[in-house]
Amino acid sequence: MKALFLSADHFEDTELLVPYYRLKEAGVDVDVASAGVGKITGKHGYEVEANKSFGEVKADEYDLLVLPGGGAPAAVRKEPAALAIARAFFADNKPVAAICHGPQILVSADLLKGRHATCYASVSSELKDAGAVYEDREVVVDGNLVTSRSPADLPAFLREMMKRIER
Amino acid sequence: MKALFLSADHFEDTELLVPYYRLKEAGVDVDVASAGVGKITGKHGYEVEANKSFGEVKADEYDLLVLPGGGAPAAVRKEPAALAIARAFFADNKPVAAICHGPQILVSADLLKGRHATCYASVSSELKDAGAVYEDREVVVDGNLVTSRSPADLPAFLREMMKRIER
Repeated sequence: MKALFLSADHFEDTELLVPYYRLKEAGVDVDVASAGVGKITGKHGYEVEANKSFGEVKADEYDLLVLPGGGAPAAVRKEPAALAIARAFFADNKPVAAICHGPQILVSADLLKGRHATCYASVSSELKDAGAVYEDREVVVDGNLVTSRSPADLPAFLREMMKRIER
Repeated sequence: MKALFLSADHFEDTELLVPYYRLKEAGVDVDVASAGVGKITGKHGYEVEANKSFGEVKADEYDLLVLPGGGAPAAVRKEPAALAIARAFFADNKPVAAICHGPQILVSADLLKGRHATCYASVSSELKDAGAVYEDREVVVDGNLVTSRSPADLPAFLREMMKRIER
């Protein structure tokens, strides 16, 4: 079992690290991809090694995509190679778990039309503009897609994320 | 099922928050106790509400004790009411999970004599002086006691902590 995170500097530290450690607890291999290989730094100063660049990721090697929030998605959504990765997961109907600002990446990849989803409150307008059915709940599950609003939702987010790979 | 954390300002943020969210994911009620009720702030700036004071905790209401690290244990270990809580868990052979500097609290409570345990490297001398059998491993389990060294050990720490309450 293998999971892929897409992120960048200014990630929301707990939204990356809590799912990261949770997946490793379950014995899942985790890769973190960013625009380039090397350290990325969260808003609260935690450093995480991005061991893959977006361009070198082979999406078909992974069983789960995780999109943490914070300031990182604003950078990730500008990277065509990152959007191509998200589209590959949706094309194969593989689980995608996005929290807070993470769904912005799915907006830019044009993957939310008609999909039920949630996100950080200030992101909700662009979700609706992208054709999503926005719901203000701790976690929204729509097929392969799991979304949550903020760090306080992490317990529900983890629960639904883990269910998708334990089926 | 109910878990209790003992902490204070300058906690290592991930060592408190990762087990905290993990337990809530599993539907466990979590209380955080400190010298007084109110916000405590981690080394990386995360704020957590301590909803109990050490003095008002009734240890017999809980199934698990978690002792995160960072700078917090240096303060917690000076509080007789916190040491009494740790002793009550050991007296009833209930699970205690301590990471990094967290075992310092158990040193001060004189609970480690002859027990296999690990901790942050710089804390190992005082563990040995307290009579513990120190082991440099990601997680050490000795009966009710689960100990780990640092945030990088969180996956193994979570795995063993959860096993103790899922029995």
